[in-house]
Amino acid sequence: MKKLVNKIDDIVTEALAGMKAAHGDLIKVLPNVKVIVRSAPACKVAVISGGGSGHEPMHGGFVGYGMLDAACPGEIFTSPTPEQMYEAAKAADSGKGVLFLVKNYTGDVLNFQMAADMLAGDGIKVEQVIINDDVAVKDSTWTAGRRGVGGTVLIEKIVGAYAEAGATLDEVKELSEHCNANVRTMGMALTSCAVPAAGKPTFDLPDDEVELGIGIHGEPGRQRVKAMTAKEVVDYMATAVVDDLPFQKDDEVLAFVNGMGGTPLIELYIVYDALVNFLGGKGIKVARSLVGNYITSLEMQGCSITLLKLCSKTKALWDYPVHTPALRWGR
Amino acid sequence: MKKLVNKIDDIVTEALAGMKAAHGDLIKVLPNVKVIVRSAPACKVAVISGGGSGHEPMHGGFVGYGMLDAACPGEIFTSPTPEQMYEAAKAADSGKGVLFLVKNYTGDVLNFQMAADMLAGDGIKVEQVIINDDVAVKDSTWTAGRRGVGGTVLIEKIVGAYAEAGATLDEVKELSEHCNANVRTMGMALTSCAVPAAGKPTFDLPDDEVELGIGIHGEPGRQRVKAMTAKEVVDYMATAVVDDLPFQKDDEVLAFVNGMGGTPLIELYIVYDALVNFLGGKGIKVARSLVGNYITSLEMQGCSITLLKLCSKTKALWDYPVHTPALRWGR
Repeated sequence: MKKLVNKIDDIVTEALAGMKAAHGDLIKVLPNVKVIVRSAPACKVAVISGGGSGHEPMHGGFVGYGMLDAACPGEIFTSPTPEQMYEAAKAADSGKGVLFLVKNYTGDVLNFQMAADMLAGDGIKVEQVIINDDVAVKDSTWTAGRRGVGGTVLIEKIVGAYAEAGATLDEVKELSEHCNANVRTMGMALTSCAVPAAGKPTFDLPDDEVELGIGIHGEPGRQRVKAMTAKEVVDYMATAVVDDLPFQKDDEVLAFVNGMGGTPLIELYIVYDALVNFLGGKGIKVARSLVGNYITSLEMQGCSITLLKLCSKTKALWDYPVHTPALRWGR
Repeated sequence: MKKLVNKIDDIVTEALAGMKAAHGDLIKVLPNVKVIVRSAPACKVAVISGGGSGHEPMHGGFVGYGMLDAACPGEIFTSPTPEQMYEAAKAADSGKGVLFLVKNYTGDVLNFQMAADMLAGDGIKVEQVIINDDVAVKDSTWTAGRRGVGGTVLIEKIVGAYAEAGATLDEVKELSEHCNANVRTMGMALTSCAVPAAGKPTFDLPDDEVELGIGIHGEPGRQRVKAMTAKEVVDYMATAVVDDLPFQKDDEVLAFVNGMGGTPLIELYIVYDALVNFLGGKGIKVARSLVGNYITSLEMQGCSITLLKLCSKTKALWDYPVHTPALRWGR
């Protein structure tokens, strides 16, 4: 296992210093606690997320105008602490309340709940929405129920835009739940990731096999099969995603092909091409798209496919300007 | 070697189809020839680049307002043909002339020259600038002289902005040469890439070694050494880069940390943090920055460091709006 790091204990601190240095126009890092906040506070409902590091650019790369107000990075693949979440909310709250967007992993759920209790004691209004879009498995290593994966990126964008546009805490919570109810994801891996502190790959995968339904920490998926073509991968995963909601003929969707961190961009475009053809064959309309590495698993090679059923409101909010380190468009 | 592809011969065609489907608002693909052009033509000097595929998002991801007018992707790590370059220029020329930005690889240089000759026969004004920013080695597998690497991204952005702002062909050529004279890069790898048609890694690198000075096709670098920390990598490469120009105390620079494709973003931010500290120690001022995977080598793990000495003009052109699949900011 070779990595571009210094001391393992310093990975998150140094990466945050690098982010701050590179994106000081957009973000800053709170002193003495690992929390990324916008460089300029906003007078609106604060939308906050967080989770283990190793999934970059999620979540810190999504802090900025039109998306998150703060992000709490834990150690690699480790939940951030309630203290981080509490400090993030204290820094970002403008008096209009705080929404926690929580990926469904047991540690994250417990710690965000603890932070919410602490904030309630301070008189800060907090709501939480648990994101659980992964259709691959029902329970997993660190999750009761379904895992929160690629859909999180889309929800943070759309709900962040809604808060930016002045929606109330109840409204952003309701839209988050609406999005979560309409988004489904499945992922797969060609290779394992390697957690720095472990010093070795998280799992072994033979040279001629891939794992379908894998989680973003390398948690087990549905099955291991012989290496497949991009089209076969798309057929398998998109079928599982489409059948689950289900997505239907004439639905308008946002199609998101996400890289797990170590997959070349050229392959993600090949997967996206196959996905567009697959959906076209079913009469499902791709109205918006996203292709790239947005929720990763360190150096894992692989991808995930996320579909979000759009309505006129969520489509307009997707198009709303966004200005963060990792996603930027519009004014 | 596992990859998310279908037939090897279809890789570039399918990736272009995916790009077109994902970014139809910004780009289109010419019929019958592998050329990416802007969705709407511009009435200005056309800035065109191209090279082997496998370096995505370079160059196709840089086509759009404020950057390139067209890009010619060859097969993986293979020069595009003169015909592609000719068709790109014919499609993009508005009568104000064409600038070819050419990375210094023998095949690219020969083919762009051949296309320029063909275009001259048609009465189209063409100028070329050869980019050769890699300080690692003097000659290499596919290059006489220095290789063109990370500096290409910065030159395409800055020169693209200048053309967008209405500069003449002579002016954009002169600025390209000015930028090339003021930019230096060095790269390194932790792991090899694997060319699909070859079916195996391009080179073998032991589990405890890295290669310093590597090229973007896995061409040999300066030396192989035992695995280093991020700080040691930065010390080695940034010293080579700084000493070469040389960059001096009080110089204002754009600092670019580029991932080779398979390196997690969190590691690139750690490298960037180390680079900022290194430059700070020398009194070199980081005025602008770029961190991410912009000129890659398939799934290779590693990074490159590029420094561009800025002046008020190039700084303003860096800030100029850009609207491409891979780089977006401003109006």
